[in-house]
Amino acid sequence: MSAKPETRLCHYTNDAIHVRDKNLVEDLIGKVDFTEGLYFLIFGRIPTRAERRVVDAVLVTLMEHGMTPSAIATRMVYGSGPEALQAGVAAGLMAVASQFVGTMEPAAHNLRALVAAGDGMQDAARRMADEYRAAKKPMPGFGHHLHKPDDPRTPKLLALAETEGVPGKHVKALRALSAEVDRAAGRHITINATGAIAAILSEIGVEPEIMRGLAVISRSAGLVAHIREEQKSPAMRTIWETVEEAVPYRRD
Amino acid sequence: MSAKPETRLCHYTNDAIHVRDKNLVEDLIGKVDFTEGLYFLIFGRIPTRAERRVVDAVLVTLMEHGMTPSAIATRMVYGSGPEALQAGVAAGLMAVASQFVGTMEPAAHNLRALVAAGDGMQDAARRMADEYRAAKKPMPGFGHHLHKPDDPRTPKLLALAETEGVPGKHVKALRALSAEVDRAAGRHITINATGAIAAILSEIGVEPEIMRGLAVISRSAGLVAHIREEQKSPAMRTIWETVEEAVPYRRD
Amino acid sequence: MSAKPETRLCHYTNDAIHVRDKNLVEDLIGKVDFTEGLYFLIFGRIPTRAERRVVDAVLVTLMEHGMTPSAIATRMVYGSGPEALQAGVAAGLMAVASQFVGTMEPAAHNLRALVAAGDGMQDAARRMADEYRAAKKPMPGFGHHLHKPDDPRTPKLLALAETEGVPGKHVKALRALSAEVDRAAGRHITINATGAIAAILSEIGVEPEIMRGLAVISRSAGLVAHIREEQKSPAMRTIWETVEEAVPYRRD
Amino acid sequence: MSAKPETRLCHYTNDAIHVRDKNLVEDLIGKVDFTEGLYFLIFGRIPTRAERRVVDAVLVTLMEHGMTPSAIATRMVYGSGPEALQAGVAAGLMAVASQFVGTMEPAAHNLRALVAAGDGMQDAARRMADEYRAAKKPMPGFGHHLHKPDDPRTPKLLALAETEGVPGKHVKALRALSAEVDRAAGRHITINATGAIAAILSEIGVEPEIMRGLAVISRSAGLVAHIREEQKSPAMRTIWETVEEAVPYRRD
Repeated sequence: MSAKPETRLCHYTNDAIHVRDKNLVEDLIGKVDFTEGLYFLIFGRIPTRAERRVVDAVLVTLMEHGMTPSAIATRMVYGSGPEALQAGVAAGLMAVASQFVGTMEPAAHNLRALVAAGDGMQDAARRMADEYRAAKKPMPGFGHHLHKPDDPRTPKLLALAETEGVPGKHVKALRALSAEVDRAAGRHITINATGAIAAILSEIGVEPEIMRGLAVISRSAGLVAHIREEQKSPAMRTIWETVEEAVPYRRD
Repeated sequence: MSAKPETRLCHYTNDAIHVRDKNLVEDLIGKVDFTEGLYFLIFGRIPTRAERRVVDAVLVTLMEHGMTPSAIATRMVYGSGPEALQAGVAAGLMAVASQFVGTMEPAAHNLRALVAAGDGMQDAARRMADEYRAAKKPMPGFGHHLHKPDDPRTPKLLALAETEGVPGKHVKALRALSAEVDRAAGRHITINATGAIAAILSEIGVEPEIMRGLAVISRSAGLVAHIREEQKSPAMRTIWETVEEAVPYRRD
Repeated sequence: MSAKPETRLCHYTNDAIHVRDKNLVEDLIGKVDFTEGLYFLIFGRIPTRAERRVVDAVLVTLMEHGMTPSAIATRMVYGSGPEALQAGVAAGLMAVASQFVGTMEPAAHNLRALVAAGDGMQDAARRMADEYRAAKKPMPGFGHHLHKPDDPRTPKLLALAETEGVPGKHVKALRALSAEVDRAAGRHITINATGAIAAILSEIGVEPEIMRGLAVISRSAGLVAHIREEQKSPAMRTIWETVEEAVPYRRD
Repeated sequence: MSAKPETRLCHYTNDAIHVRDKNLVEDLIGKVDFTEGLYFLIFGRIPTRAERRVVDAVLVTLMEHGMTPSAIATRMVYGSGPEALQAGVAAGLMAVASQFVGTMEPAAHNLRALVAAGDGMQDAARRMADEYRAAKKPMPGFGHHLHKPDDPRTPKLLALAETEGVPGKHVKALRALSAEVDRAAGRHITINATGAIAAILSEIGVEPEIMRGLAVISRSAGLVAHIREEQKSPAMRTIWETVEEAVPYRRD
């Protein structure tokens, strides 16, 4: 253990609470909204307007996707133990993993590699598209089982970031890659919301390894909404019975 | 199973995503911030200014409390498996339970009972304070091990709600109860942040059984900040070694 | 903090590992089976034959119940992130809560109260049955939606405990209560497996507050089996699609 | 979705419960112990004596390791919400991840590769050891921060498997690799318990992708023991206070 670790997040005294270098009561409550507050806590400074607008757009986009595996897990656990609402949310959040939202991380890494290629961006994008194609691997951030030909969230998110005046390098890389993905596939494949989010979060300097954290915060709100609906109009037993029928027993 | 359950939260079509009765891309992204978005998703309508301000204040207040059991659990799990950031957050959220934040629920139920007493509010508050005192039970929403004589968050939160013009009945009940708690104890006991939050969320119509959901959303942001710090400056091994020393083995 | 806490569970030295007061390598590996090992770790001594047989019976009984909310949660989370098998199990375990297996706790408390009534056991059972009936509350440990007239696990579990020569007081209390439950209802209501388990675990001195722990250990094995099946023959997408159809969207 | 998925794990009728192709009450309760039961449920057949002995040895070995990150997470969550014991266990299980127990998976893959090399096993082991050495990567299943020169569990586990007459190919591969790891390092590096477990589970045909499942079952018992200790002699607040001191706040 080389250096003694410290935390810069929070400190309590008898009569004050400090969140990073600000006084919670004097500087934050009533002065910043939740998005500014969480950005400040995670990244260490109050966001610019562009940063706040991009983060709000991402959080609003990822919040809710219907009766997904995540929402189903939440409803199963909440219905089994309504005394522990937090366990219901926790169960659903665990499904914010590699197979769905988690693809924003390799997507972001790819975009960073293309930006690093500088003037060779388009060549690098062509090689990248060809490599994935040859390996028969789906390109992270591309494709959607339902939204064809195009994911409606993508142009909105990219336009919002551009309107806010972000630098634009990662968005440019995404567009370069999109052209090459289409060429390699011989058909149009949509940039999906995850790809667009990887690009615009990269524009405001959010590193790939913490991107999933924003998805988790956003989804926690969606899962609380599922619990609220379960409180008012429970679906848990219907889901249970339906699944029992849909996956019947077969004797070994 | 009487009626077939439905969900009103989200619907996908080929070219549109509906969140409740709004179009995600047309009506929400770039038009509402995260607080408005999550309020809309959970409660079914866009919040008024007062509702949004109260919810923002609550979310900012509950976000971060330092190296709490919740944050420790998150850091232990994240450090053991950084490939699953979401599991780290989920582990910490499970500690948003009865012993800490969860006290806002009985606090809110008590305030509702006092409001229901109408003109008899002060009498009801006196009986309530005396009953808890006689049973040697702590009054939920009162007392703090560190913030003495007063929790600095409480006046700020109550003032913010009053400035925004909430009805004020539950805040009045909280103040009535506070006077009786002090009288029964023979000394001043602070209204803590949980008590203040129970009151102001009740003012805007948030029901006790979903209050903990807002705490969970808020804390998810705090736990992502702990993970961010763990990524940059890991404390997990120090915590582990410190705990091994602090809780030594003793042979049966 | 009055006394410095200690742990008696485990200690490592350079060349030995102690689990409680035994040497893991010399005394436990290859000498005790898992049931003996976990009983020793939790309760502090190697079980008698009767204790081991009862615990094995309970662990085998609770292990698996088909496509329950617990198993569904596990499959949803595992399918969303197969890189974190442990999160899949954790999600499902969270559903081992108040609504299902957790009823063994109030059942055990009731049986203990009846045993404490001594010679007045039958009278106490009658009052208990009448009180639940009057309050229209289901008696914990009784009733089953499917196994009618009788849960086939109950006679087996009770007979096994009796064959092993347990004292029999809690089993006697369960039978006394069963007669009164039937009388109060005017029809036969089965003692379910949870009621039988509450009785036989009480017979061997397992306290109510840790009973759920045995259920959690048992279910962890069942959930690993669901993950194994998901690896070989995935059902996650079918479940997802089925649930989306079963709980349709309705516009607010 | 090509074929309709099925489950072979469990089926209920009015008067019987089938676990796979056996009757729970007639064939399993009282006839198999927990280890046989869980093996049967996960792998589809009753284990041979050798399989049962190896699985028992693994489950007993991995059960408990003291105040680890896993146990700390469990104690933090349990102490914050004792009404949800299962959430405490779930939190700790999430730490059974890549950094600790999870290394048995790459260890097992390596051993399988060496077995597949047939007569070229020793050459393959030499290349493998040199590659890890050149990449400065630790060899999974080797090394221990405390148990030097040798992990005491390893010879016991290997001897137990050999006594039970397992084929021995993976154990042979482990020994071949050990010699090459020592040669490449220029000093002796212990085979740790995880490496030994990877070998002996491979001997009885357990595939790498489900090995972690056995670790999760085993650890669930250990975490229940930590909760039992927390119920009798709580350490949570001491841990909390200790960590707050060990990781002090520093202003940004």
